[in-house]
Amino acid sequence: MTSATFGFAVQATCGKARAGTITTPRGDIRTPAFMPVGTAATVKAMLPGSVRATGADILLGNTYHLMLRPTAERIAALGGLHKFMNWDRPILTDSGGFQVMSLASLRKMTEKGVTFRSHIDGSRHEITPERSMEIQRLLGSDIVMAFDECTPYPADEGTARASMELSMRWAQRSRDAFGDRPGHALFGIQQGSVYADQRAESASKLRTIGFDGYAVGGLAVGEGQEKMFEVLDYAPDMLPEDKPRYLMGVGKPSDIVGAVARGIDMMDCVLPSRSGRTGQGWTARGQVNLRNARHRDDPRPLEEGCTCPACTGYSRAYLHHVIKSDEIIGSMLLTWHNLHYYQSLMQGLRDAISAGALADFTAAFHANVALGDVDLR
Amino acid sequence: MTSATFGFAVQATCGKARAGTITTPRGDIRTPAFMPVGTAATVKAMLPGSVRATGADILLGNTYHLMLRPTAERIAALGGLHKFMNWDRPILTDSGGFQVMSLASLRKMTEKGVTFRSHIDGSRHEITPERSMEIQRLLGSDIVMAFDECTPYPADEGTARASMELSMRWAQRSRDAFGDRPGHALFGIQQGSVYADQRAESASKLRTIGFDGYAVGGLAVGEGQEKMFEVLDYAPDMLPEDKPRYLMGVGKPSDIVGAVARGIDMMDCVLPSRSGRTGQGWTARGQVNLRNARHRDDPRPLEEGCTCPACTGYSRAYLHHVIKSDEIIGSMLLTWHNLHYYQSLMQGLRDAISAGALADFTAAFHANVALGDVDLR
Repeated sequence: MTSATFGFAVQATCGKARAGTITTPRGDIRTPAFMPVGTAATVKAMLPGSVRATGADILLGNTYHLMLRPTAERIAALGGLHKFMNWDRPILTDSGGFQVMSLASLRKMTEKGVTFRSHIDGSRHEITPERSMEIQRLLGSDIVMAFDECTPYPADEGTARASMELSMRWAQRSRDAFGDRPGHALFGIQQGSVYADQRAESASKLRTIGFDGYAVGGLAVGEGQEKMFEVLDYAPDMLPEDKPRYLMGVGKPSDIVGAVARGIDMMDCVLPSRSGRTGQGWTARGQVNLRNARHRDDPRPLEEGCTCPACTGYSRAYLHHVIKSDEIIGSMLLTWHNLHYYQSLMQGLRDAISAGALADFTAAFHANVALGDVDLR
Repeated sequence: MTSATFGFAVQATCGKARAGTITTPRGDIRTPAFMPVGTAATVKAMLPGSVRATGADILLGNTYHLMLRPTAERIAALGGLHKFMNWDRPILTDSGGFQVMSLASLRKMTEKGVTFRSHIDGSRHEITPERSMEIQRLLGSDIVMAFDECTPYPADEGTARASMELSMRWAQRSRDAFGDRPGHALFGIQQGSVYADQRAESASKLRTIGFDGYAVGGLAVGEGQEKMFEVLDYAPDMLPEDKPRYLMGVGKPSDIVGAVARGIDMMDCVLPSRSGRTGQGWTARGQVNLRNARHRDDPRPLEEGCTCPACTGYSRAYLHHVIKSDEIIGSMLLTWHNLHYYQSLMQGLRDAISAGALADFTAAFHANVALGDVDLR
């Protein structure tokens, strides 16, 4: 399904959780949605058709990486990011701000924006709200994120406030620079660290500016699940009910289940793909380290009943062998499995919300994880 | 098509070149055949279904690598190499001898066999003709290679003769140890370096022993194409006409075209897959280095008209980007393209032989390569 404009409709709720659909000219996005990360115009170790086969409706692209290499201008000249990376469905791009702060060197932040040196070749660059909007437009992003500062954790109230207020001024500049682009969405990002009053103030300012969706920012930055859930117990409620709510950079399966229950509609994380390149498999019984010698002679699949190519075609013994041998197929198969597992989890959450049975689903999820992988033997 | 027994039939000839079919219980192999190399139970950066999609009828597995990790006994306990690596069509395994000499340390060769230390963990191992047959049986190989010494190049007549005679004694021991295994084939390997009389003597000894197929060994070891073709001008003719002839470890596309014209039916080489991991693409216009900055803005596919996923889905600019960025998808796409190109070349050769037009095909092949890739711009 495609729609001429960007839209969002909630089809079912269960407690605070929502099951819905984001409509875009490039196709629908079923929510709650997990977005695999395609940092440098590729979901690492996957072909786009395989990513789609796992059930992904949308990918995330990274403005910081792409502006440095191959550059947004080059991608635009080649027809945009979708064509460049051979993915014709929706793409959300981040604003570049978070990754500048975590990857670039010689960073200098001012009211105007941030200057930095590339981690690839040391070249000098600048991102401002206006430049971030321009880059994301050049990439052809369907969902554009406002340029903000991801407030570090921990931050005292004064630091958090100054950071939040800067991000809100940048949110207004992002909105102004984005302009009117039918079929494309601009999302604002709530900050305010762990301070409810600041979260409320940030949400209020964003609502006044007006966005097509709203992200909960400044979480998944080292505060831990308990603290994150404390913020998620109230922060999403401050955002408009009729727009998608996006929790950036989350997370582990248990993070996702907890976030959805608290009203989050969209998430992204490198975890399933990164884990796939380090021999870690995610299953209903929790995380499995396939480098472990206990899998050496195990004829069983990584996850019984899983329909991904890793589980239908290969034993744990094979996965162990190719991971130990540093064979690329190890990364390919485990990434595929992990993304498949994540998308299956999202489908389970959507079905449970629609059936009004999220509590049962969540209880079963935790019970399965508690059983652990070793009990399978 | 499958057959209860191993067989070979020539359907067409064109000069010395033959187009035929090897029948096995695991499916037919169209000849001339190129066998992708699946060293450690994987064709690097490819899923088996993708290898099959390129047109490969058979893979090669490496006894040396597999005996060390995960071990032949472990693979046997897990149901054999086909099941282990999820490839249900024929597999040819080498004898281990060549790779012991090129990879292992502290090698010691005696009449009995060769002892060595693993390049992985330094553990001590021995391969004899008898052990090589046992390992290849444990792996479940469809086409088993006799254990031999690949005579180094250059070798003076005396050295070459001693090496060849040892290999012929080992060929007899391989034959004795292989036994009677319906549906499985044992190939003998001709040695004799660049000496026609020794090649003839080796062929005569192998024919006396009797094999299901015959390899031309001791080539593609640094002698160069001209010298290799000099040997191929007579060596294959010394082998039985009614059995497949296998040129081991060859080669570049021009090597393949020249070898087929000289009566070779089977070949294998790591070149297309290895090239795919170093940014080298093989096309009808020759080799293309996609790391070169001239591809940076090029919207065209690597090879116009190619139906592989790399060429139908991506620009040269994208391939350049992901290769420069060390993204796994670069290896995946280029390996796929290269194997696709190789299999297309084999199909072209088979069709040309069947049409009695191999000379035209060969002339067109060389004319295309001579045009070069830069002329495409």
